This record gives sequence, structure tokens and C-alpha cells, in this order.
Amino acid sequence: MPRVKLTVAYDGTEFHGWQRQEPPNAPALRTVQGVLQEVVATFVREPIVLMGASRTDAGVHAKGQVAAFTAESFRVPVERIPFALNARLPRDVQVRHAEIVAPNFNPISDAKSKCYRYIIEHLGPPHHAAPLFDRDFVFTTPHALSLAAMQHAASQLVGTHDFEAFAQVSHGRETTVRTIFSCHVRMIAPRRFAVEVSGNGFLYNMVRILAGTLVDVGRGHLDGNSIPAIITSKDRRQAGTTLPPQGLCLEWIHYGVPAEVIDS
Amino acid sequence: MPRVKLTVAYDGTEFHGWQRQEPPNAPALRTVQGVLQEVVATFVREPIVLMGASRTDAGVHAKGQVAAFTAESFRVPVERIPFALNARLPRDVQVRHAEIVAPNFNPISDAKSKCYRYIIEHLGPPHHAAPLFDRDFVFTTPHALSLAAMQHAASQLVGTHDFEAFAQVSHGRETTVRTIFSCHVRMIAPRRFAVEVSGNGFLYNMVRILAGTLVDVGRGHLDGNSIPAIITSKDRRQAGTTLPPQGLCLEWIHYGVPAEVIDS
Repeated sequence: MPRVKLTVAYDGTEFHGWQRQEPPNAPALRTVQGVLQEVVATFVREPIVLMGASRTDAGVHAKGQVAAFTAESFRVPVERIPFALNARLPRDVQVRHAEIVAPNFNPISDAKSKCYRYIIEHLGPPHHAAPLFDRDFVFTTPHALSLAAMQHAASQLVGTHDFEAFAQVSHGRETTVRTIFSCHVRMIAPRRFAVEVSGNGFLYNMVRILAGTLVDVGRGHLDGNSIPAIITSKDRRQAGTTLPPQGLCLEWIHYGVPAEVIDS
Repeated sequence: MPRVKLTVAYDGTEFHGWQRQEPPNAPALRTVQGVLQEVVATFVREPIVLMGASRTDAGVHAKGQVAAFTAESFRVPVERIPFALNARLPRDVQVRHAEIVAPNFNPISDAKSKCYRYIIEHLGPPHHAAPLFDRDFVFTTPHALSLAAMQHAASQLVGTHDFEAFAQVSHGRETTVRTIFSCHVRMIAPRRFAVEVSGNGFLYNMVRILAGTLVDVGRGHLDGNSIPAIITSKDRRQAGTTLPPQGLCLEWIHYGVPAEVIDS
């Protein structure tokens, strides 16, 4: 039975996150996994289980989520699967790629690196209007931010560390050690910043807490040299606030060579 | 009593157009004029009439709609009005500028030039996914389009003509003569085209019909040299189809020197 890997993009605004909510506890919640699993099952004409790589929260977007399913057969060549599924999917979720993978492919444990992007805009003086057309994709702050301070702090996050201070307290993971391959802050438009972070995995809310910590540094509430001490503290209260979901996008997940090799 | 000119931007997706729908015929329709007029009236603490320059249709967006009202007084300097109104407005409409104008300022008849932009994307082969994050701002077509053919046809629209062939038949205007100052087609991304047209005024659905005619030329259904004959025919059936509203955005309205002088 062929196993298929899908690359999935979605606008998370009107989804209650990735993960399917099982009835009867949450009968009516619309999730990406729920919508996509139903469309795939209809397409392959059998019940399937769709396993996703990242359980993105409500409001979080994705350009490169990865999911996999195993089915008896399907009626088109694998390269036509995106077209067949997209014809049945709602407008806010798309399958961008499909390929046959090994029968034991596991999108969670086989992932070598992931990249997230968080968009922050400084609203500036009152006459600067908030984002309008992309308001569901940007976090806005009234505080002026120092790009240099944020870049310096971001560089201190790179490496293999115990990131317990940057995880929501009820994270439920056995180990909180993760490796961040790269963490960059760039200006992508006037008063608009992108935090791009890649790593071998992320704890629950970790990117939103990293971004919140960088905003605290950028506005001068937190010393840019304090990142190592925050990491060492393993104390969630030492890091910054958890920024809201809408600024966050899962950019890509790699299953081959890790991003550190690609980048060099 | 001061008269105030507002520059207004909105995401038209969830509005039933600009124009207020009067009860009891349409009691529940959400319109930009309806929402904004109510917020302005609350702000100035008196009933006001908000007059808009362009009656954009449901789904049409604006970056530079212009509206005006007259009020006894308001409690802040005029430059703070956008901030005060935006604090009360929903997230999909914004006041970007406010200024005091002459008591007889009429946003419709005083307008010297307007610019609209229509975005068209060629979806290409099935593996090219449709727009996702900006799906409410782009018209998509499965047909390959010739940029050169569209640019040539666009240039033939410039000038003072009777545009009856490019107006919805029930347009209700006394004269259908208008001047187009400029009409350009540009590629703004792979397979994505922007039609930008400025003129001293536009008939009902005129920009959407112009864009539809250019698409017909671009895909080879219509001869690019036929524009003058279509204009001369004054026959709506000779022009192209009316494209849907979501690709259209009202970019700006000028009240000073006309755009032809600015451009030169």
C-alpha cells in the first residue's frame, strides 16, 4: 500500500488549528487535519489517517506543513494528487506537493529541520494605520524596536540548549533540549520585521515566546545579552510574553539533510 | 461648520459595497458607508451625512476612497481624527487621512482623476496552486495571457471617448463620455498581471469590463487592434466579460491637478 507525503499550505485564520477535534467533545470545530483527512478519504474511497508534522495552533498559518497517509490505491498519478485534492478543498487550504515515500515514513519523527517565520510591525505614531489587507498575518506593537538589538539577541539563541524557559509550562514533552540552526531578524518593509528561526524541533509555543522575547529586547525592556541567562534559568517567567498566533507561519519542514548543512 | 475630507481604505470582502442600504429594503446589509457614517456620528455626537466619491461594489477594495462630512465641531485636532475613528472602526476599514476642506467640497463632482487597479493571475498548469493568502484580491484565469498584446490594447483605451460599450447597460448616466489618462498592464509577480487605469471618471462596472476585455485580448480571443472599433460600436456585447469584483481596488482619487499633468 503506497504511503503519500503531502506538502500543505493554509490560512489559519478560520481554522481551530491543525489537529482534528474528536467528537463528541468538540463536534463542530473546523480544523485543517479534519478538513483535509475527509477530502483525502473521499478521494481514495477508504477511511485513512492523516498524520501531520506540526500541530499548529488556531490562527497560525502554514506554507509548508507536511502530512502523510497510506491508502490501498488512488486513481491518478501521484503528481496529479494536489490538483485532485485542491478541487475538493475549501479556499483556505491547499495541497502544494505530493510524493510517494517509504511505508514507514513518519512526518513527526523523521523531520530533520523546520522553519517558522513570525511577522512583527511597529505601528509608530498614531497616524500610521495598522495593517489592513494582511491584518491576519502580522502582530503589531506600538513600541519602536531596535533591529540591531533583536539581531544580537537572536544570534544568542542559536545552538543546542535546554529551551524549557521558552516553552509553555504545560508542554508535556520528555526533553526540552532542542537545536536552533539559525535565527535571523530582518526588516522586510518599513517598520516591519520578520523573525525566521529554523531548528530540529520546537516546544509548545516556543516560536511565539522566542519572538516575544526578541520584541522585549527590541523595545529595551530586556537586555539583549540576557538570553544565555534566560536559557540557563529554565524559568518560563524569565523569557518574554507569548505573542499571538496570527503573526506565525510554518514555512517548511525538511526530511533530508538538515538546514545547517544547506545554509553553509 | 467645518467640512472634513477623509481618505478611507477597506478590505471589501465582507462588505456589501460602499453605499449604505436603507432599511426597510435591506435592513441588515453591512456597507462601508453605513459602518463609517455611524462611527463618525458617534465621534462628532450629531447625525451626519457621509458622502463618498465612488460607490464601489461588494467585494471591491479601496486604498484611497474619499468621503466627506460636515459637523458642528469635533473634540480633537483634525490630524488626530484618523486615530480617533480607527479606534472605533472594525478591522477591515481604516481612515488614513483627514483634512479640513471648503464648505462646498463635493467628493464626487470635485474629483479630477481616479485610479483603479485590477489584479489577474494566470493559474498555469494544474500544479500551480491558486492564490491562498491573498485569494480575495486576485482574479484567476486558466488561460495564458500575452503581456504585449494586453499592453497594446490598453494603450488604445487612452483618450477621451464615448465608453458606452464598456458600461453595464443599465448604467443610468447622462453621458458616457469619459477621459482615460493612462492605462498600463504590468507583470508584478510570476504569472500575475496588474491593470492600472486612471481617468476623470468611470462608468458602472467600466474597469471590470476593461479588464475583462484585456484578458480576452491577452488570451487571443479578441484582436488587440479591435479596441477602437469596440469603442465606436457603443455596443456592450462587443467588449469583454465583466470580471468579478475581488480583483479590483480603488487606488486613489485626486482633487488637484489631473493625473495627466502629474505623470508628465
